[in-house]
Amino acid sequence: MDTSIKFSPMGQRLTEPVITDLMARALADPAMLSLAAGFTDNTQLPKSLVGQAVAGLTAPESDPETLQYGTNAGRTGLREAVCRIVSRHEGEDASRITPEQVFLAQGSQQALYLSMQVLCEPGDIILVEEPTYFVFMEMLQGLGLEARSIPYSPDTGIDFGKLEQLFLEMQSTGEWARVRAVYIEGYFSNPSSRSQPASAKSGLANFLRERNAILPIIEDAAYRDLYFEKPWSAMSTLSMPEFDGFPVLYLGTFDKPFASGLKSGFGICNHQEWRNNMLFAKGHQDFGSSNFVQALIERVVSTDAYDAHVATVRAHYKGKAFQVQAILEAEGLADVGWQWEPPSGGLYFWLKGPEGFDTSIGSDFCEACLANKVLYVPGDLCLAGGQPRNCVRLSYGVLLGAKLDEAVRRFVRTATAG
Amino acid sequence: MDTSIKFSPMGQRLTEPVITDLMARALADPAMLSLAAGFTDNTQLPKSLVGQAVAGLTAPESDPETLQYGTNAGRTGLREAVCRIVSRHEGEDASRITPEQVFLAQGSQQALYLSMQVLCEPGDIILVEEPTYFVFMEMLQGLGLEARSIPYSPDTGIDFGKLEQLFLEMQSTGEWARVRAVYIEGYFSNPSSRSQPASAKSGLANFLRERNAILPIIEDAAYRDLYFEKPWSAMSTLSMPEFDGFPVLYLGTFDKPFASGLKSGFGICNHQEWRNNMLFAKGHQDFGSSNFVQALIERVVSTDAYDAHVATVRAHYKGKAFQVQAILEAEGLADVGWQWEPPSGGLYFWLKGPEGFDTSIGSDFCEACLANKVLYVPGDLCLAGGQPRNCVRLSYGVLLGAKLDEAVRRFVRTATAG
Repeated sequence: MDTSIKFSPMGQRLTEPVITDLMARALADPAMLSLAAGFTDNTQLPKSLVGQAVAGLTAPESDPETLQYGTNAGRTGLREAVCRIVSRHEGEDASRITPEQVFLAQGSQQALYLSMQVLCEPGDIILVEEPTYFVFMEMLQGLGLEARSIPYSPDTGIDFGKLEQLFLEMQSTGEWARVRAVYIEGYFSNPSSRSQPASAKSGLANFLRERNAILPIIEDAAYRDLYFEKPWSAMSTLSMPEFDGFPVLYLGTFDKPFASGLKSGFGICNHQEWRNNMLFAKGHQDFGSSNFVQALIERVVSTDAYDAHVATVRAHYKGKAFQVQAILEAEGLADVGWQWEPPSGGLYFWLKGPEGFDTSIGSDFCEACLANKVLYVPGDLCLAGGQPRNCVRLSYGVLLGAKLDEAVRRFVRTATAG
Repeated sequence: MDTSIKFSPMGQRLTEPVITDLMARALADPAMLSLAAGFTDNTQLPKSLVGQAVAGLTAPESDPETLQYGTNAGRTGLREAVCRIVSRHEGEDASRITPEQVFLAQGSQQALYLSMQVLCEPGDIILVEEPTYFVFMEMLQGLGLEARSIPYSPDTGIDFGKLEQLFLEMQSTGEWARVRAVYIEGYFSNPSSRSQPASAKSGLANFLRERNAILPIIEDAAYRDLYFEKPWSAMSTLSMPEFDGFPVLYLGTFDKPFASGLKSGFGICNHQEWRNNMLFAKGHQDFGSSNFVQALIERVVSTDAYDAHVATVRAHYKGKAFQVQAILEAEGLADVGWQWEPPSGGLYFWLKGPEGFDTSIGSDFCEACLANKVLYVPGDLCLAGGQPRNCVRLSYGVLLGAKLDEAVRRFVRTATAG
């Protein structure tokens, strides 16, 4: 038996993510089909691009420096490429997106973690979307932080009337003074695949400014380049004039559009002190992400092959999203009161069951899905406060062809069986 | 001007490492020769081994899964290889070093950071060696933690008489109750290149046990495989029977013996709850290090070429250490009262100037070295409490041949000029 250790408050707060047990049950059963994991599709991974890039990096005449430690902020060439990739989106203001604002990280996840460490202490509050990225919710729990949802409106993205109510409530309880940042996923969100209309973003800036709350804004754009037909039209909070004066951290990644196995993402932060503090913390955590992985990606993104690859990936996920939509319709999920919008980018369907329906872990529905060998992410994990419990995230990232068909069919048949 | 942000206590504590400014001055001056950075030697980086491994991983018939997300703890194959690599050292008990205890991290640095996060809260204390790894000291400062030195003895490694005094003092002030872990570098330490005698380690275990202080032990073995003639004879704290019942975290890395640009290290932790808590925190920070980098290393270490490479690296650093020693002697550093032991492994010389001599940043000596275009790490940065100030760390990692000669000559001539 282990000797007992006195853990820190964080050590005492940390628990196994609830989803882990579910995933473990799935892995243990080869017949289980998973619509849960946010993994990408192995058939779309850029094996030959990576092979070619590394062949170049390791050729006899090449400089071995790529296999040496790099810098804490990351390779200049890749930071410049990040600026080009983000700036070329319509509406972006390239003059506001500069290499010295960029730092490379172990996925955008690490940048998000660093941002929370330097901004928040236990008891602090982050405003998030409804729904939001569930691994972020777990991170907040681990750091002793809380989340409150910015009320969603299907028409305008944000329900500003309800947001005003929330503000007044949080002011009266003193909670508003503990809000430290706003976290939004402006583009093809995980889990909802929704994008924020420009009017919602600018409205949010105005709402906060009017209340003298020039809060740090974290815009997670992990799925921005995974659009199906065309990029989402709204510019980022980095470029939007309404956010002038707001500290903004924009997060992006090469994991989703390129190769998740490389674990390479970035932050672009327009606020020097915030950025420096994140980099100081990163210096303690790892004093820089893999220089070799950065050099590899730098080499790939300097060629047209990168864009061509991402275009192929987009078309592939678009096809799979259509496939899922067709089965959801054909199998009659809407007939039993479920609602959803087909995604126009990203990797997920966000489905809302009938009111009062319960999809949470341990619910009858969850157990029935497990019995029918299909796995999903319960929507309550993506909602601050864990309510409502009638939503589901389905990912079409991993499965392919007949298996994807079969998985979605199992899900719908379980939903319609009751 | 940036909008002001309310930072967390950690955000407020974080500052630029004092060494950064020194390094920046060096980088800005091409004539400056650096004996400061703990980088490895670019000529020893395994370009062709990495190229071959990646060619295999990206060959048409290979499984693309290496470019997909891996697991939080890391690839099973590499975790097994880690056990083999550590266990084959003489005296290690392979039955106590198992793959499920291993987790792979963004360098061993990340594992060290995770260990501190789950064990410590601000005001807590870590026992360290005298001297100790200065980036760890910076990490402690950022986390709001303090360090106390285990008194050094040139004869026995640890001065147990003085340690008893320290214990009694810390008990009387209440500080002893805040000690959360012991951090040692058993093998060719950064910065001293010293190794702990088995008797010092076992004595430490007995000392702690007799005082009912079964504290977590962190043994950083980053330089263990960089021995010159033969491995250091003492087994690790994982295997040493005196440490039975102690929670032990053993840290190792592929950065120093293989390629620092890959940023891949590991922890081996014999205490399940501690390990789990570190993994939960890692799940929030990055949910797993680069699967591709792990697969690459796994492929290399499965061949004899890895051992052959490390053997070459050892011989190379041994040669450079001899070179530095020869110049220190020839230029007469000992004649002006400096003392040192030639290293038998690792990457550093630890030099002690005359009593009262000051090598700290801003000192006359430091400025004179900068004027003479040579850079070192001031020893006070490596000492809990920052005293004494008459020591220096010189690294022979980066420089080569005539430049290494010249750098050491500049250093000694500055020291002997007064």
